[in-house]
Amino acid sequence: PPGRKVLIVYAHQEPKSLNGSLKRVAVEELSKQGCSVTVSDLYAMQFEPRATRNDIVGCLHNPEEFNYGVETWEAYKRGDLSNDLIEEQKKVQEADLMIFQFPLYWFSVPAIMKGWMDRVLVQGFAHDFPNCYDSGLLKNKLALFSFTTGGSREMYAKGGISGDIRYLLWPIQHGIMHFCGVKVLAPHICFAPEYVSEEKRKEMLIAWAQRLKTLWKEEPINCSPEWYFK
Amino acid sequence: PPGRKVLIVYAHQEPKSLNGSLKRVAVEELSKQGCSVTVSDLYAMQFEPRATRNDIVGCLHNPEEFNYGVETWEAYKRGDLSNDLIEEQKKVQEADLMIFQFPLYWFSVPAIMKGWMDRVLVQGFAHDFPNCYDSGLLKNKLALFSFTTGGSREMYAKGGISGDIRYLLWPIQHGIMHFCGVKVLAPHICFAPEYVSEEKRKEMLIAWAQRLKTLWKEEPINCSPEWYFK
Repeated sequence: PPGRKVLIVYAHQEPKSLNGSLKRVAVEELSKQGCSVTVSDLYAMQFEPRATRNDIVGCLHNPEEFNYGVETWEAYKRGDLSNDLIEEQKKVQEADLMIFQFPLYWFSVPAIMKGWMDRVLVQGFAHDFPNCYDSGLLKNKLALFSFTTGGSREMYAKGGISGDIRYLLWPIQHGIMHFCGVKVLAPHICFAPEYVSEEKRKEMLIAWAQRLKTLWKEEPINCSPEWYFK
Repeated sequence: PPGRKVLIVYAHQEPKSLNGSLKRVAVEELSKQGCSVTVSDLYAMQFEPRATRNDIVGCLHNPEEFNYGVETWEAYKRGDLSNDLIEEQKKVQEADLMIFQFPLYWFSVPAIMKGWMDRVLVQGFAHDFPNCYDSGLLKNKLALFSFTTGGSREMYAKGGISGDIRYLLWPIQHGIMHFCGVKVLAPHICFAPEYVSEEKRKEMLIAWAQRLKTLWKEEPINCSPEWYFK
């Protein structure tokens, strides 16, 4: 609906890929709805995935023994995080919905996107014990993981060789998003697009556009072990 | 035992950290046994986590539409992967055992280590359909995930707020290591070292050294859904 803000965190090297097209479809459809859409195109930004001392501007809280979690927490409070992190945190803060668009790499997000999680979702900003899970600091936001796989739907079925696809969603949906208080919409999965016809890939794009039309009416999943492992 | 080769893939910024000490203990104990130990110290190497066109030397197989999986597979066959990847693959090839030593970041390995998985375990080298899972190309090797957590043992218990710790091991142990044919030893977990006494942290180091003394007699876990979700 008009006025809603969406952040698309996008990790693919090739604009002509299906991931690139899925990202474009989302920008178009959500913009058409009157949403304001921002894209963090991680490869194009050459986004830094490594969690290092460079993320803190100026002096360290404890220069004797570097502790990344403590130092970024302190730096957040002082306003001394590096600029690239401050920029991403602003986008997250403004967003009603975050869409993560990526190809599944090794049962998870690509390292460049994991680096975005590791570095942007700093203590004090995204969570701050006991403000985690349902009282995480990013509550009232939604997240949706939209991704492509190498393996087929059958491989990722319950009892399939790679196990139920939901098993691998636990760390990213529950461990990251739910931990920060974010509510999670059902994932959007395009299975094995490299092994289907051009026609089928077009249908995948249409299906995504269709889903986005009624996305704001969706209820979040019940992000508890039952959803994943039952 | 004398002659066994061990690769420790290590991801912590601070040598004085518990992770740094756990790594040192492993180098010392395994060397004492007569093993030959190699360490990939990812932060010290400034290891590149991003999967990009730079990983392929010279021309691309399909310059019209960049596909990282296809390009690295082709480059591997031609011997045209970047030098940093060739170096890591040599270490993996020689290793009887890989130990991954890291602090748990967001229910998974830090991005710099995820980048090592994404970039080093190339198709053709680590797997090559149908050579995956029990017939993966790295069979006859062992892997062990040794890590520290922020959350306590209680939070990571079955029914705990963060769920059984085994849930989050599925993608890395099964999805990555087992997929490549590697057999997995039980993980070694130090819960919440930042919240215990110096005395307790010393006990953690001693327990790790003790385990390493009989490590070669251990049987791998049964890396199937039962181990993780039952």
